[in-house]
Amino acid sequence: MILKSIALAVMAGLAAAAQAPKATSSSPQEIMDAAPATAWKTVPAEDLVIMTLADGHVVAYQLASQFAPVHAANIRQLVRTGYFNGASILRVQDNYVVQWGRPDEDPTKPAGITAAPPAEYEATLKSVKFKALPYRDAYAAKVGYIGGWPAASDGKAAWLVHCYGMIGVARNNPPDTGDSTQLYTVIGHAPRHLDRNLTVAGRIVSGMEFLTALPRGTDTLGFYKTDAERLKIVSTKMASDMPTGGRPSFQVMDTDAPDFARWVKARANRDQAFFVRPAGAVDLCNAQTPVRKAP
Amino acid sequence: MILKSIALAVMAGLAAAAQAPKATSSSPQEIMDAAPATAWKTVPAEDLVIMTLADGHVVAYQLASQFAPVHAANIRQLVRTGYFNGASILRVQDNYVVQWGRPDEDPTKPAGITAAPPAEYEATLKSVKFKALPYRDAYAAKVGYIGGWPAASDGKAAWLVHCYGMIGVARNNPPDTGDSTQLYTVIGHAPRHLDRNLTVAGRIVSGMEFLTALPRGTDTLGFYKTDAERLKIVSTKMASDMPTGGRPSFQVMDTDAPDFARWVKARANRDQAFFVRPAGAVDLCNAQTPVRKAP
Repeated sequence: MILKSIALAVMAGLAAAAQAPKATSSSPQEIMDAAPATAWKTVPAEDLVIMTLADGHVVAYQLASQFAPVHAANIRQLVRTGYFNGASILRVQDNYVVQWGRPDEDPTKPAGITAAPPAEYEATLKSVKFKALPYRDAYAAKVGYIGGWPAASDGKAAWLVHCYGMIGVARNNPPDTGDSTQLYTVIGHAPRHLDRNLTVAGRIVSGMEFLTALPRGTDTLGFYKTDAERLKIVSTKMASDMPTGGRPSFQVMDTDAPDFARWVKARANRDQAFFVRPAGAVDLCNAQTPVRKAP
Repeated sequence: MILKSIALAVMAGLAAAAQAPKATSSSPQEIMDAAPATAWKTVPAEDLVIMTLADGHVVAYQLASQFAPVHAANIRQLVRTGYFNGASILRVQDNYVVQWGRPDEDPTKPAGITAAPPAEYEATLKSVKFKALPYRDAYAAKVGYIGGWPAASDGKAAWLVHCYGMIGVARNNPPDTGDSTQLYTVIGHAPRHLDRNLTVAGRIVSGMEFLTALPRGTDTLGFYKTDAERLKIVSTKMASDMPTGGRPSFQVMDTDAPDFARWVKARANRDQAFFVRPAGAVDLCNAQTPVRKAP
């Protein structure tokens, strides 16, 4: 909602059911809040990376182990060998991507990774549980979800898509040159033309707003011109290597749960008092799987 | 492109034609650069607003006079009576909107505006020159362009859509409560469910990156909690009121020009060396009309 007043926004956002002058369905937020524990799946600690930036902000991201196992293994190895500690945010291009890793002039070599992983761009449709949305898509015959992730399919293959907050693996021109030493996340309108052109290896689950609010780089393609402009990455850790009591933990909504189907339908058909004309449809990247801190 | 190296990025970005190992078509950038002067239209100075922020950054936006004449007239009047001078950025919600104007507690009253403009959400299709894209859309039967603007149609009506950088008019629940005293721009994946629910009154043509990089607000819906957090708007001026010699001027590509059609096709079918699999389609909001400084 784009209300003019914070007072009205609070009222509408937090007490819609009580205040609305006409009968309305549950809002997407209300459906999420009411969903049982079984509608949520905890992100495995072995798939959760905690990245601390030099400005004190913490970003957490989830690895897409099912879709990009070799790239995910590389990221775990790079994290555990400290490759990203002292790396930096290299590039922020408006309405496109934030990219991090080590710059050209940095002599640090990655240790123990698969140097040339296969281009993990897609899986066979038969090998996954693809749940299609009933809405059109500009790029693919079908879009929907696979095990909590936004995905697309052409009827034979299925692949993860470049929605806001998804993480991909930077590469040079040949497809097998993405070794996970440089990663990027989408910060604007989904650049879906990158689907099946780069490996999608994860997604941001917390702290996205600290990456998207970074100053845009002023060199070609939004790279920072000087090292002084680059925000450093102080540390990157696997959640599974942190003490059990204090480690962060997140949950992603189960895209096969009935509550999720209700949530999508409510996103597509908003009939709360503010809306004059519910859309009757939703773009996949506007119905990204809800994520929350583990209660 | 998500190249790993700034050196490679420069090479690929600026000299793709010379470096590419296989024969490729012109890139979207090359088509833009080669387009004749007739493929560009200058934004009328009477539709161009120059907003200077307290951090020194300048944002320019174009009014959608054809589609929202009453709201555009209100904005001109608010600008000329100094309503926005001393107003502020009120809200930054990640992956959604930046909203500006005056907060609830500000006693400043707008002078000489239409207090309750009609909800200028759509026009009849017959009254506009709608140029459809040949690609699917999740929300509308057809998407395309009207006179340089991204638009959608159901075969009877046509309307401007909420792409990245488009400007809308905040309102309270009744549709006729948007008087242009608070405006917002889209900073994430296009929230197309807002189409025909709010008046689209313009678009950012320069300085978008200064709005998108602002810290996200931490109150409900991304509103800032305190006045101290709000970046002030120092001044807002109509370009037409500035001295002819020194005023900023921008050009928007003519969406009816053959060069624009080539540009869209190239955006949809990127066959430069980096791309393994051109998409063969493009989402309307990923093919937003190019804008440049007037040469």
